[in-house]
Amino acid sequence: MQIRTGIGVDVHRLAPGRPMTVAGLLFVDEPSGPEGHSDGDVVAHAACDALLSAAGLGDLGSNYGTSDPRWSGAPGVDFLTETAQRVRAAGYEIGSVAVQLVGNRPKLGPRRQEAEQVLGEAVGAPVSVAGTTTDGLGLTGRGEGVAAIATAVVHRA
Amino acid sequence: MQIRTGIGVDVHRLAPGRPMTVAGLLFVDEPSGPEGHSDGDVVAHAACDALLSAAGLGDLGSNYGTSDPRWSGAPGVDFLTETAQRVRAAGYEIGSVAVQLVGNRPKLGPRRQEAEQVLGEAVGAPVSVAGTTTDGLGLTGRGEGVAAIATAVVHRA
Amino acid sequence: MQIRTGIGVDVHRLAPGRPMTVAGLLFVDEPSGPEGHSDGDVVAHAACDALLSAAGLGDLGSNYGTSDPRWSGAPGVDFLTETAQRVRAAGYEIGSVAVQLVGNRPKLGPRRQEAEQVLGEAVGAPVSVAGTTTDGLGLTGRGEGVAAIATAVVHRA
Ligand SMILES: [Zn+2]
Ligand SMILES: [Zn+2]
Ligand SMILES: [Zn+2]
Repeated sequence: MQIRTGIGVDVHRLAPGRPMTVAGLLFVDEPSGPEGHSDGDVVAHAACDALLSAAGLGDLGSNYGTSDPRWSGAPGVDFLTETAQRVRAAGYEIGSVAVQLVGNRPKLGPRRQEAEQVLGEAVGAPVSVAGTTTDGLGLTGRGEGVAAIATAVVHRA
Repeated sequence: MQIRTGIGVDVHRLAPGRPMTVAGLLFVDEPSGPEGHSDGDVVAHAACDALLSAAGLGDLGSNYGTSDPRWSGAPGVDFLTETAQRVRAAGYEIGSVAVQLVGNRPKLGPRRQEAEQVLGEAVGAPVSVAGTTTDGLGLTGRGEGVAAIATAVVHRA
Repeated sequence: MQIRTGIGVDVHRLAPGRPMTVAGLLFVDEPSGPEGHSDGDVVAHAACDALLSAAGLGDLGSNYGTSDPRWSGAPGVDFLTETAQRVRAAGYEIGSVAVQLVGNRPKLGPRRQEAEQVLGEAVGAPVSVAGTTTDGLGLTGRGEGVAAIATAVVHRA
């Protein structure tokens, strides 16, 4: 059995008044959310990059390029669904994906299992979602942005 | 065989005069250590989060919540011992855990193998401990805090 | 089959006029590059640390110490070649290595596959290379430095 691992980090700047979409969920009471023309879903994006790198398929930029109108502004979960399909089309089975949200907000705890269900359905394999803070330090501790880090494991049948 | 991967990052702020506990070891000559009511052992905490996410069991917060008196202030190694038991109780065997300390201090090198032994006994599986710095940059480079990053791999028998 | 995972993060400070070597490639048009007496190849260094931790062989510092003249100033790819040999000498097969460059520069996209070929030959197993930015935030977003994060998976035959 050929086993491969992947890694993905994503960071987005937060801006007041923007919707906060993280791990496929909208957190309606958040005062700020990621800037940019995508939903800035760091958890979904990090999971995509981890899956793509596990399968040796490049990264979000090389797969969905900033200039491709089909994917411009697409929700993070759509990227994740498509990414899982590309990983399987390349001949890999997905063992699991694990993602950790790193930031002060949103509070993921009460909706963690809901997030795992949404992302797990997109991937078609177990997706673990967790959260941590950085004790007030760094870009996430100062609230400038939100980050996520993910790993994935895939294998050939 | 079902293979799953996990990830965990932890960061703690350093304060003068606090004991420096990292990777289950007390570094008695350090001038500062992690703030807070726990020992702030970033290596043990990151390892726990990596194991929990590999097994799909949530994170430190959801398992040991800040309000649970049993775990309030517990040493990092105790969390790790309990976490490994929960992972096995969920039906997984632990392949290994790998943790990298990211920070200027303490110097882990001379005690790296001692750390691996302490944490490996807590987990009941190989735990790799390594260290790096960030070339004077970022929250760890400026000495504001200490960080650790961990991965784990588990599988069903 | 015994499966083990590894993790590695590396950060180097950027200075004007220094050559920019990343993922085994020289980017000749870059205005800055890593400081120090090595080539500061964060992608190769992170990959080495991930492989070493997967195999339980310590880290770059414990393997190639700053005082060993044989390795002082060695190119990152040479460390990677030697590291893969040490991992195999310890009895492990290498499943894969995945590395993500985190930084504004260089633009890895056009040379990503070239990088994967160079590093894959050094390791003798698949090496995925990907890139991301941090939306202008943190040490890499401000352009103070360049970072990389890697995972590896190894197993005993
Ligand atoms: Zn993103
Ligand atoms: Zn902690
Ligand atoms: Zn380095």
